[in-house]
Amino acid sequence: MRILLNADIGESYGPWNMGNDELLMPVIDMANIACGGHASDPVTMSKTVRLALNHKVILGAHPSYPDRLGFGRRAMAMAPFELTAHVIAQVGALQAIAKAEGAALGYVKPHGALYNTMIKDPEVMVAVMQAVAGLESNLKLMILATTRIAEHEELASRYGLSLIKEAFADRRYCSNGELQDRKIAGSVYHEWELIQAQVKQLTQSSSVTSESGKPITIHAESLCVHGDNPESVRVAQAIKDLLQA
Amino acid sequence: MRILLNADIGESYGPWNMGNDELLMPVIDMANIACGGHASDPVTMSKTVRLALNHKVILGAHPSYPDRLGFGRRAMAMAPFELTAHVIAQVGALQAIAKAEGAALGYVKPHGALYNTMIKDPEVMVAVMQAVAGLESNLKLMILATTRIAEHEELASRYGLSLIKEAFADRRYCSNGELQDRKIAGSVYHEWELIQAQVKQLTQSSSVTSESGKPITIHAESLCVHGDNPESVRVAQAIKDLLQA
Amino acid sequence: MRILLNADIGESYGPWNMGNDELLMPVIDMANIACGGHASDPVTMSKTVRLALNHKVILGAHPSYPDRLGFGRRAMAMAPFELTAHVIAQVGALQAIAKAEGAALGYVKPHGALYNTMIKDPEVMVAVMQAVAGLESNLKLMILATTRIAEHEELASRYGLSLIKEAFADRRYCSNGELQDRKIAGSVYHEWELIQAQVKQLTQSSSVTSESGKPITIHAESLCVHGDNPESVRVAQAIKDLLQA
Amino acid sequence: MRILLNADIGESYGPWNMGNDELLMPVIDMANIACGGHASDPVTMSKTVRLALNHKVILGAHPSYPDRLGFGRRAMAMAPFELTAHVIAQVGALQAIAKAEGAALGYVKPHGALYNTMIKDPEVMVAVMQAVAGLESNLKLMILATTRIAEHEELASRYGLSLIKEAFADRRYCSNGELQDRKIAGSVYHEWELIQAQVKQLTQSSSVTSESGKPITIHAESLCVHGDNPESVRVAQAIKDLLQA
Repeated sequence: MRILLNADIGESYGPWNMGNDELLMPVIDMANIACGGHASDPVTMSKTVRLALNHKVILGAHPSYPDRLGFGRRAMAMAPFELTAHVIAQVGALQAIAKAEGAALGYVKPHGALYNTMIKDPEVMVAVMQAVAGLESNLKLMILATTRIAEHEELASRYGLSLIKEAFADRRYCSNGELQDRKIAGSVYHEWELIQAQVKQLTQSSSVTSESGKPITIHAESLCVHGDNPESVRVAQAIKDLLQA
Repeated sequence: MRILLNADIGESYGPWNMGNDELLMPVIDMANIACGGHASDPVTMSKTVRLALNHKVILGAHPSYPDRLGFGRRAMAMAPFELTAHVIAQVGALQAIAKAEGAALGYVKPHGALYNTMIKDPEVMVAVMQAVAGLESNLKLMILATTRIAEHEELASRYGLSLIKEAFADRRYCSNGELQDRKIAGSVYHEWELIQAQVKQLTQSSSVTSESGKPITIHAESLCVHGDNPESVRVAQAIKDLLQA
Repeated sequence: MRILLNADIGESYGPWNMGNDELLMPVIDMANIACGGHASDPVTMSKTVRLALNHKVILGAHPSYPDRLGFGRRAMAMAPFELTAHVIAQVGALQAIAKAEGAALGYVKPHGALYNTMIKDPEVMVAVMQAVAGLESNLKLMILATTRIAEHEELASRYGLSLIKEAFADRRYCSNGELQDRKIAGSVYHEWELIQAQVKQLTQSSSVTSESGKPITIHAESLCVHGDNPESVRVAQAIKDLLQA
Repeated sequence: MRILLNADIGESYGPWNMGNDELLMPVIDMANIACGGHASDPVTMSKTVRLALNHKVILGAHPSYPDRLGFGRRAMAMAPFELTAHVIAQVGALQAIAKAEGAALGYVKPHGALYNTMIKDPEVMVAVMQAVAGLESNLKLMILATTRIAEHEELASRYGLSLIKEAFADRRYCSNGELQDRKIAGSVYHEWELIQAQVKQLTQSSSVTSESGKPITIHAESLCVHGDNPESVRVAQAIKDLLQA
């Protein structure tokens, strides 16, 4: 099965535009659609759902800590039951918008600080899993495929959830399969050679080379690409070409 | 069939409490639960849904113009498609919260300025009907039963919707069946004699006496009661006793 | 005295960028800086104040109805005392930010729907004037110079305020000196010939030709230009060149 | 000099009421007035300033991490320059409101998580001090008087600031003069005997007995009291009586 491309989409807010959704949507397979936590609003959600449907892209919800000004990039000290309620409400809003357009969501991918925190904090992971399990329609949960992915799959199965295992083509990995902090120089690959090499290694040997120089096993089902600017859309297209080759 | 009592419920927000939900919930049959437009947040929604379920109260969504500071009491110049998207997103959030608690919503009652504006502005009425029609699960729409109720039922049927016809025990009516503006003295009844008389007239002759002194026909399926203070809860209970007598 | 150019500036919000402030700031004389009502946040305000200071641009506050999602373009039913308090708080926030950068504001220009409503509704005009009069430092108030400007100057003087009379180079005027509604075709001039002609008429004969074909007298002290895109910045520069010629 | 009483005041928000400001204001000497970070809005600020002026209470600003839903009780990962800008904007808004009422602020007391974090994190302390130093009118800064108060006074003097040293009558102290975490049982005193004893020790020997049983020196200039309910207002009055005895 081909590795699918996913991207964060629909992150405009009211009068403010963000990203290049029109350019990026034709390239990707799965759209992580902002649903009001870190970005978007009901009108933007409707528009984004329709754009995704036009391009036959799988619809995903992209919930976040409720922090628009911080764009969901700051971890928040929320009790697990609070976090669960927020994730359910955000995804529920997008589900209803999708339903009104005759469509349905396929999965949930937490955004930003929530995505990172859940991998490190088991309470947050459980709070998110309980949220997704409580939602309609057997949504899958997309998380980072680390060296603890088997443990996370076991945990998910207790909540009746399936995981979508995600990897990054343009990020340097720690030896535990987590992403090296962006603040460390060299954590984000900008050179096509590095990106290309990581994609090939992921597809051909189901592994990445971590910062220690050692390969770690990662069975990725989806790769995250970006639409911040036209150049990142070109990189996304190049990754797609590589995957289809 | 007995006329059911409905009330606005779950209007707290984060650390701020409003209303007397614990006192009012045992008295009512239908809870119009705030869903983030004028009040509430995901945690408050969860708590309110559980409280309603404990008292076997029918769950309704109470969407609003998105205006927390104005508590949804100011009409907003939104395009119909914008309003539709906001209503869908608000109700969708509450539906998901309810689903996670093993429950389902039964109806939608627009709040405040939206409730009033839709009766006067056909574009807004259609925008709301389209929203409710686009939502999951055949939700009913609760609106004010005016002298134009047949026309509204005909319109609703075009969208496949059923209406719940609402009346007020404590408000003076205009001769077209709309509520007299609160700003006019005498528009809100505080005396039990006036309230009691209006309830009796609604149940016994399906009518109210309008400000012109003439009776107008109103087949009410639900009466709106309030929980602003312990006194209004006592009035609600007295109305319930009257209906059950 | 030369007519000065003013523009709406600093309308980004958190992670969302808007406008071309870096390009526009060198062209203008007066910056209408968003202060949290329709756009901006404290960090954006700080950055914008510093950018204006670097280019020796006069600092103005650009308060709005409190409606970020609607970008202050929707009139809101607020009581006059509510509006006054909101304008004071918004401008006060920006004043403090400016003071911390060693600078001071020179004027207030209401934004969007508030700018338009105050010309039509005397209660709103008074609410805004009372706000500006209540603020520190003898701020001036920039308003549209219509055929009723003498009446507005008289009203302002009762509150101890000076007005800055504003005109538009790219908008068609009604015969009462108000701007023709944008929704009417031809209300916004995109052709340089029309813009150039209106600037010349304003500078050479202190008048514009209204939609009725008749000239109306307007003694403009400032012209509004835009930075929505690089083209509008070029138009602003061309107007500046024309004024300096 | 008598120790003054301060309290958090003006924490309502739009339609939501909080606290018992009418009861508490006559009892206190200094009002920490919410200014939009964790609570309040421009109308509430105006009303609260007027209430404080009626009771001749010293006006203080009570800025917070910008987190209304969390009521400013969650520390936020903000860069120091971001925090500085937010504190300036919040206090500036209240200063302008006060000025319009013919009054001026005397001091700033950070709220909730910000109050606690600044004592532990020197970067946050400096960010707050820079904010207060950048504001108009030589505002004082109220902070917790711990065993490191001399160090904090030295730091404040570098920014030209005076501190107001605060103590708590109803909280158990750690041996470093910080407050014991509320989550630990016994951290908050509800018994009048304990509160009374701590007030007497603060006034008579400028010390409190910490959880280790040893006294620590605290020269308090102000004591924090509360208005959550009528009972806490009675405790505040009893403390005042004790101080005046």
